[in-house]
Amino acid sequence: MRSFGREAHQLRPTKIEAGVSRNAEGSCLIQCGHTRVLCTATVEDNIPPFLRNTGKGWVTAEYGMLPRATGSRNPREAARGKQSGRTQEIQRLIGRALRACINLEKLGERQIIIDCDVIEADGGTRCASITGGYVALHLALQKLVDDGRLNHIPLLHSIAAVSCGIVDGKTLLDLDYVEDSAAQVDANFILTNSLRIVEIQASGEEHTFDEESFNAMMHHAKTGIEELTALQMAAIRSV
Amino acid sequence: MRSFGREAHQLRPTKIEAGVSRNAEGSCLIQCGHTRVLCTATVEDNIPPFLRNTGKGWVTAEYGMLPRATGSRNPREAARGKQSGRTQEIQRLIGRALRACINLEKLGERQIIIDCDVIEADGGTRCASITGGYVALHLALQKLVDDGRLNHIPLLHSIAAVSCGIVDGKTLLDLDYVEDSAAQVDANFILTNSLRIVEIQASGEEHTFDEESFNAMMHHAKTGIEELTALQMAAIRSV
Amino acid sequence: MRSFGREAHQLRPTKIEAGVSRNAEGSCLIQCGHTRVLCTATVEDNIPPFLRNTGKGWVTAEYGMLPRATGSRNPREAARGKQSGRTQEIQRLIGRALRACINLEKLGERQIIIDCDVIEADGGTRCASITGGYVALHLALQKLVDDGRLNHIPLLHSIAAVSCGIVDGKTLLDLDYVEDSAAQVDANFILTNSLRIVEIQASGEEHTFDEESFNAMMHHAKTGIEELTALQMAAIRSV
Amino acid sequence: MRSFGREAHQLRPTKIEAGVSRNAEGSCLIQCGHTRVLCTATVEDNIPPFLRNTGKGWVTAEYGMLPRATGSRNPREAARGKQSGRTQEIQRLIGRALRACINLEKLGERQIIIDCDVIEADGGTRCASITGGYVALHLALQKLVDDGRLNHIPLLHSIAAVSCGIVDGKTLLDLDYVEDSAAQVDANFILTNSLRIVEIQASGEEHTFDEESFNAMMHHAKTGIEELTALQMAAIRSV
Amino acid sequence: MRSFGREAHQLRPTKIEAGVSRNAEGSCLIQCGHTRVLCTATVEDNIPPFLRNTGKGWVTAEYGMLPRATGSRNPREAARGKQSGRTQEIQRLIGRALRACINLEKLGERQIIIDCDVIEADGGTRCASITGGYVALHLALQKLVDDGRLNHIPLLHSIAAVSCGIVDGKTLLDLDYVEDSAAQVDANFILTNSLRIVEIQASGEEHTFDEESFNAMMHHAKTGIEELTALQMAAIRSV
Amino acid sequence: MRSFGREAHQLRPTKIEAGVSRNAEGSCLIQCGHTRVLCTATVEDNIPPFLRNTGKGWVTAEYGMLPRATGSRNPREAARGKQSGRTQEIQRLIGRALRACINLEKLGERQIIIDCDVIEADGGTRCASITGGYVALHLALQKLVDDGRLNHIPLLHSIAAVSCGIVDGKTLLDLDYVEDSAAQVDANFILTNSLRIVEIQASGEEHTFDEESFNAMMHHAKTGIEELTALQMAAIRSV
Repeated sequence: MRSFGREAHQLRPTKIEAGVSRNAEGSCLIQCGHTRVLCTATVEDNIPPFLRNTGKGWVTAEYGMLPRATGSRNPREAARGKQSGRTQEIQRLIGRALRACINLEKLGERQIIIDCDVIEADGGTRCASITGGYVALHLALQKLVDDGRLNHIPLLHSIAAVSCGIVDGKTLLDLDYVEDSAAQVDANFILTNSLRIVEIQASGEEHTFDEESFNAMMHHAKTGIEELTALQMAAIRSV
Repeated sequence: MRSFGREAHQLRPTKIEAGVSRNAEGSCLIQCGHTRVLCTATVEDNIPPFLRNTGKGWVTAEYGMLPRATGSRNPREAARGKQSGRTQEIQRLIGRALRACINLEKLGERQIIIDCDVIEADGGTRCASITGGYVALHLALQKLVDDGRLNHIPLLHSIAAVSCGIVDGKTLLDLDYVEDSAAQVDANFILTNSLRIVEIQASGEEHTFDEESFNAMMHHAKTGIEELTALQMAAIRSV
Repeated sequence: MRSFGREAHQLRPTKIEAGVSRNAEGSCLIQCGHTRVLCTATVEDNIPPFLRNTGKGWVTAEYGMLPRATGSRNPREAARGKQSGRTQEIQRLIGRALRACINLEKLGERQIIIDCDVIEADGGTRCASITGGYVALHLALQKLVDDGRLNHIPLLHSIAAVSCGIVDGKTLLDLDYVEDSAAQVDANFILTNSLRIVEIQASGEEHTFDEESFNAMMHHAKTGIEELTALQMAAIRSV
Repeated sequence: MRSFGREAHQLRPTKIEAGVSRNAEGSCLIQCGHTRVLCTATVEDNIPPFLRNTGKGWVTAEYGMLPRATGSRNPREAARGKQSGRTQEIQRLIGRALRACINLEKLGERQIIIDCDVIEADGGTRCASITGGYVALHLALQKLVDDGRLNHIPLLHSIAAVSCGIVDGKTLLDLDYVEDSAAQVDANFILTNSLRIVEIQASGEEHTFDEESFNAMMHHAKTGIEELTALQMAAIRSV
Repeated sequence: MRSFGREAHQLRPTKIEAGVSRNAEGSCLIQCGHTRVLCTATVEDNIPPFLRNTGKGWVTAEYGMLPRATGSRNPREAARGKQSGRTQEIQRLIGRALRACINLEKLGERQIIIDCDVIEADGGTRCASITGGYVALHLALQKLVDDGRLNHIPLLHSIAAVSCGIVDGKTLLDLDYVEDSAAQVDANFILTNSLRIVEIQASGEEHTFDEESFNAMMHHAKTGIEELTALQMAAIRSV
Repeated sequence: MRSFGREAHQLRPTKIEAGVSRNAEGSCLIQCGHTRVLCTATVEDNIPPFLRNTGKGWVTAEYGMLPRATGSRNPREAARGKQSGRTQEIQRLIGRALRACINLEKLGERQIIIDCDVIEADGGTRCASITGGYVALHLALQKLVDDGRLNHIPLLHSIAAVSCGIVDGKTLLDLDYVEDSAAQVDANFILTNSLRIVEIQASGEEHTFDEESFNAMMHHAKTGIEELTALQMAAIRSV
């Protein structure tokens, strides 16, 4: 039995609450089962050196996890003095994905930083960060339009992310921590609202798999993305 | 006019929600006006090297602030590669204060780590961390009793903390960020439920003050601590 | 025209020279066009703490690039005091891939470290590292058998990696640096000798793509992997 | 019996030797019993970024301890790669205190750095640093006047610092290391020459105390500060 | 018997292959017995801050060792987060030596960085780095002349380096690792093509020696330098 | 004219005051002209891992400079987060030199750490550190004998160090900062009391020199070392 009594192709109960930060230009709290991630978007006028005087803007992301987001406490990265390889890999992924949905020329010479902080972790935090990060980004861009600093929201499409995996030979959508730990194959799909591919990472830690399995995960992922896209749109409209 | 229409001697609307983390042995979310701090208590069996084989336990604290807890984004300490002097000063204060309310011999050879993470900052985050940290600590100790690992909660008294300051010549209780920035004198009082002193820090950045002012702040602080103590007790009982 | 006068589905001239290090237990120099990577395998008796007394061994990888491997000099990571996110992401990928081709229980309580150092970079360094890293790993295991420390080489299959991409709408195998910089989509395929999937990473930086494009890249990748596998086997036999 | 045959309300034998550095713009060696701190003041024309073009100057402090200033050697912070939380807390305190005695607008756009290096430690190093740091600061400002770079010394008052504590129920002034280690309450008082308060820190590590105790310490502190102020004035005049 | 059947005053078989890097402005691979070092020279237009607007240029060096250049693997400095004292000492020596053979005014406001990366280590890596580094530097300067960016090569003389030592009472030229480990005295001589001294470091780790021994080493060194100088010239002419 | 009215072959006025630290097992303050270095020796029972269970002891050194030891302030290494290459080079030299005068087997499994902290710098700090470091080491060993922990002082000879240089074509002994900055050649000689060589470093930054010059410096150095040795002996006897 899966958590929340789910079938193999079902998402965990998912909720996106937009506008949760008084300070950030855009924000949401995304909850996927027991995983909760706070996503904020900050608009800054300074941009990375390599973009100065190009007229282009930038979107980047940072990811963190509160020490007791997990079952046993994991040491605070600020105290250890560096971000782990895992953290860096995840925040590079979030930033890369969000840059794929925006026209950086139309953004103009400004930078948007998406902070994804995991309050509670039960699997799928990088996917939740991307799905929630898109909402925060969209709201920050909407604010730039509302404030008369942009004429139009320079987004090309929306994006969302979901995990799939193979556990005990069964293809499952949206793995929680227990399922993720037991999975033979683990994949993350980042797709647009029209189900075009932004990025796919599929990996069999200590296992291999065939194309058929890959296609089955892809099939599940599309269903999940459609549902997540609807939740994103509702959250954005609610603000 | 003060925020929330307060008089000089009044706390901001304060709320302590206990048991907000599924993972931590004790936890609460404390909200003081717009300041919100998530406090979790983690019980670990390993203790610092200097206490090994002494039979004594340890309580320590770590403090962090989400990058967009503040009006403008402050860089993530994990990305910068070190904790600021301010962060270290605050977490040393929290740990020292909490160790003053517990019998470490009776705790036994285990360590309790209090994580205080500021979700939103509007002044008074160190005091909120101490007040909320006490609640998380109490709940974690209660759990050790419930699990049969301790016979009694080894607490000597409860503690809470509140700030006072002098702004435009007026003595105010529980400063928000705007008041704090304008204060001639800024003080933090950490007192027990019977109003004994755990720690006092009173400082006039670029100003000086006399004993009368100090005593006026002390007077206000006592009122505030009594109110906070009642909120702590209610939160603890609610779990 | 592609470099080396290649068709879209052709690898660059590729050469694997095995046994190039006097010190390492296994080693090779892999050359893919102008990309050259020195791969060495070191066998150590100490294993990571989380594996002690489990009877299991470990395979891990480190990746580095000489400062002037590239067209303009990139600062030495040892001098900057940390490995970049890119470096960490790549070395995590190499290690994960190589662990998927070995039976860690049969390896026993020892660790094999694969060092992949890029002497010259012209695109595809992470794939070359995996393909060459497998050869170094195989040779180190062969040496353990030859030395009577293992009865059999505990490998499940061989693995190799190759990149594909879409440049100007055309699907290309084994991109060099110029092609990689111009690619709309960039993917890395790590497959076994029987063409099962170990890991796939497909990403459209600032672009999206459809399943048909993905499948076309997959098709090219299989051809490339078959050719690389043959080169690996020849190199291993040559020692 | 207290060290040096002192009564409860007496300072240790204290000596301030001004002008001990050939290089620094102001300097002194302060000796409080066996505690010895070298304080130097450096005048620099560059100021912190946040003050550029404001016309204001800045005073800051750094604190260090020679490895064998203490009974057992403490590892060199430069070798460990970072300053401890204790070091940072102390140097922030020294800087904050010294900024409270100067008119930064009248200082003009220059920075004065006070270095306090503990040659030998026997308790009270932070207080000695503040008391000696004031002397170094005053002498550096005097030099700016002598060199015609300032018209007047922009000091508002002098400051000095002294510790008090409660040991075995007795209120003591100016604790040495043995007393400090045994103290139930430990407090530092930074006062002006007219005995107004600059900063107070009073803490009962693993103990609590009442207002009466606090007031008794305050009373002792005033006596000590008056004596230290006289020694500071004499040292300054001696140059 | 010495390795390669050498007499006491003989160099190991030494080979300098120039122009081995497609990217670097100058490069060579120097092989001294089993020691192999890749030396590249990079010309950059930016210079260190202390030389800005002086019209002078700069030459500096960085040194590294691949993890498995040695018999047992030495941890990667980039992963450890800092360069060892030994690495820093060596790269300071290389840079200082190379600056002694060039007219920095005539170089103009540009910087040349010499990277010396040890592919395989069997003693004498710092000397090989200097000897090979000179070749890379010469070739980079030749390229600046060929590209019309300099009128003449601003070199004053060539330099080369060789080690000598006393092992079992015998004075030996060009020690390999086994001899170096057993040496009572270890010295490095950096001389010009006319045998003038650039730098000498002679040290008896846990031993002392007399002037006669020093002079015997000096005598051997001169022979070695003459031979190395001829190899350098041949390598430079070969490009 | 040289400082202190010296001839070319004369030392600066030099003074060694032994026993200046109440805490250290051995200590001295060495003053060479305006250069002043505090040297302390700490005896610890723990030794480096590579010596455990060998019966051998270890001597090592650390070097530091107070920020305002120099004419303009140099940033504190503890605040910058790492020791400079220069610092590391110097402390490695001091340790290596001191290990050459002791029988480490007879020292037994203990470590002596020599801390050399420069209070004021006017050239020759590394030589002063070695000369003073020897005195601190000798006194600490004497204390081990006095305490009955060693039967005999396990020293083989005494060592001292002095600089020589060539300034405007003249060979000078014991350079001060102004001379050092103007020197064409700079050399440090570490010799025993019987004038055997421990270590020589002779370098012509941006200059070269011949053997005759080297021999002239060597000649001067011997005179200086004889004088320094006498001062060391007197200081040691004075305790």
